Amino acid sequence: MEKYDIEYFLYIGGNDSMDTIKQLSDYAAMHGKDQKFIGIPKTIDNDLPVTDHTPGYGSASKFIATTMKEIIRDNESFGASEPKLCVVEIMGRNAGWLTAASMLADDPDCNGPDLIYLPEVAFDPDTFIHHVKDLCLIEKSIVIAISEGIKLADGTLVCELGNDAAFVDAFGHRQLSGAGKVLTNMIAEQIGYKTRTIEFSILQRCATHLASRVDIDEAYNVGYVGCEAALNGETGKMITIEVLKRTPYVADYGIHDIHDIANVEKKVPLDWITRDGTYVSDEFREYAHPLVLGSLSKYTAGGVPKHLVL
Amino acid sequence: MEKYDIEYFLYIGGNDSMDTIKQLSDYAAMHGKDQKFIGIPKTIDNDLPVTDHTPGYGSASKFIATTMKEIIRDNESFGASEPKLCVVEIMGRNAGWLTAASMLADDPDCNGPDLIYLPEVAFDPDTFIHHVKDLCLIEKSIVIAISEGIKLADGTLVCELGNDAAFVDAFGHRQLSGAGKVLTNMIAEQIGYKTRTIEFSILQRCATHLASRVDIDEAYNVGYVGCEAALNGETGKMITIEVLKRTPYVADYGIHDIHDIANVEKKVPLDWITRDGTYVSDEFREYAHPLVLGSLSKYTAGGVPKHLVL
Repeated sequence: MEKYDIEYFLYIGGNDSMDTIKQLSDYAAMHGKDQKFIGIPKTIDNDLPVTDHTPGYGSASKFIATTMKEIIRDNESFGASEPKLCVVEIMGRNAGWLTAASMLADDPDCNGPDLIYLPEVAFDPDTFIHHVKDLCLIEKSIVIAISEGIKLADGTLVCELGNDAAFVDAFGHRQLSGAGKVLTNMIAEQIGYKTRTIEFSILQRCATHLASRVDIDEAYNVGYVGCEAALNGETGKMITIEVLKRTPYVADYGIHDIHDIANVEKKVPLDWITRDGTYVSDEFREYAHPLVLGSLSKYTAGGVPKHLVL
Repeated sequence: MEKYDIEYFLYIGGNDSMDTIKQLSDYAAMHGKDQKFIGIPKTIDNDLPVTDHTPGYGSASKFIATTMKEIIRDNESFGASEPKLCVVEIMGRNAGWLTAASMLADDPDCNGPDLIYLPEVAFDPDTFIHHVKDLCLIEKSIVIAISEGIKLADGTLVCELGNDAAFVDAFGHRQLSGAGKVLTNMIAEQIGYKTRTIEFSILQRCATHLASRVDIDEAYNVGYVGCEAALNGETGKMITIEVLKRTPYVADYGIHDIHDIANVEKKVPLDWITRDGTYVSDEFREYAHPLVLGSLSKYTAGGVPKHLVL
């Protein structure tokens, strides 16, 4: 930074990026350096503390809610003689924010997923099979949303019960996949009805054609506020979103010491998890719903959205 | 039908449905029955003969092209030191129409997939690995589109090279899945770079939020023309789409004997498959591009599209 005369470093990202901001600003403070380091929140995982939520989460939630409605409608369309099941695996290692957003498919025109499992609550295979069996007695279409990171009471990841090899990323996190397939196999073996596994995979983080307008505006605004803060001499801090009212939605922006943020994972509050650990509450809906509002008027040419190329 | 005084039977669907129309109209003819049986084409597979294309294909192609662009952009965004690969598995047992549509992601702002494999051409694992190795020498982001039904020269399905059990549906078709995973494992073993598998699964057939306007209009029109035909006394026939001009797009509707249609699968013409069986030609683009044009102004309430519930 000294070599290139760089005075300000604004880093956009989630937990790992905020840890980088903490380390860099600590280093600068320790060595009497003048460079300013500011964190700009951005992660679909929504697991940064202090800020109400993170840019990216609203758009990913809009994709998840929209696609979940479409999957439920597809799954219901068969008029099958026996129950038809579908397990949808959604991103989230330790925090179930994204998976919880599948409840936004619960609308006057859609019943939403039947079961929602988050990593915040220990997953018990026997209770799961019991819940699914009960549903099979009363419904012909059953759609189950699960976080990739659901785990047993002893901490064993459900995906580790399968055969898939687990990769480790550059930050030492295990690359999870396979929990959906494990549950599908469990249903096949213990209940016997045909079950499909769907993994949203990276579609949930890259579906810009379903971005939420609120999310886009806030992503722009945290960047703007971050630049202002750096120019005003702030360092070692992250910009936050402070929601003043949820209905009608009113948000403002703040700034907070990075030391309270780096390496702290914000999870879905346990009292928002209901129905014996198989759903999320209306408090969650009130929280998440404003974040999926509005659409980007996407620039389409020739029937397919155009991307901005720098 | 006699019990309920039903005179007209219009059946919306693909190959299996057209076979039903053939059997029912043959039965009526053989037994001197007056009921009229008309097929209305509708399948994302686009594998019905005689008609230029089938309703459903344009919207599924719009989803595939849009999502493929987003996946490619995501895959390119890492600036990794070594190549990052992604295999995208797309529906299509014997016909590669849907997978071919991934080439519509090839736009001024996107290079499109690097390799496209259709079931129409025998798949050779050694040549595949050779192509991928070559790409790894010159690119850091490689995205490969494959049909679920790609097969070796001896007819063995690539997905059967994996461990996944194959289900059989009500019409006796095998439920395929796993070809993408098989190729991903092949790359991991023989090349070693990190590779992700994405299955579009049912998202490609149920993503109504990305429906094409041309497709919606034509779906309505083949129904209208089918009703007219039945009322005019036609039976044992299917409504067809006849494209008079591709640019600007002008289509009309016709009607054709079901016996030329039932149980005949229309495949991607071999002379549209290029680059040693790894891509599709501009003729394909000219064919498919008009079908993804325009959008439905979807009725959104609360940030998520509403569905019509009868």
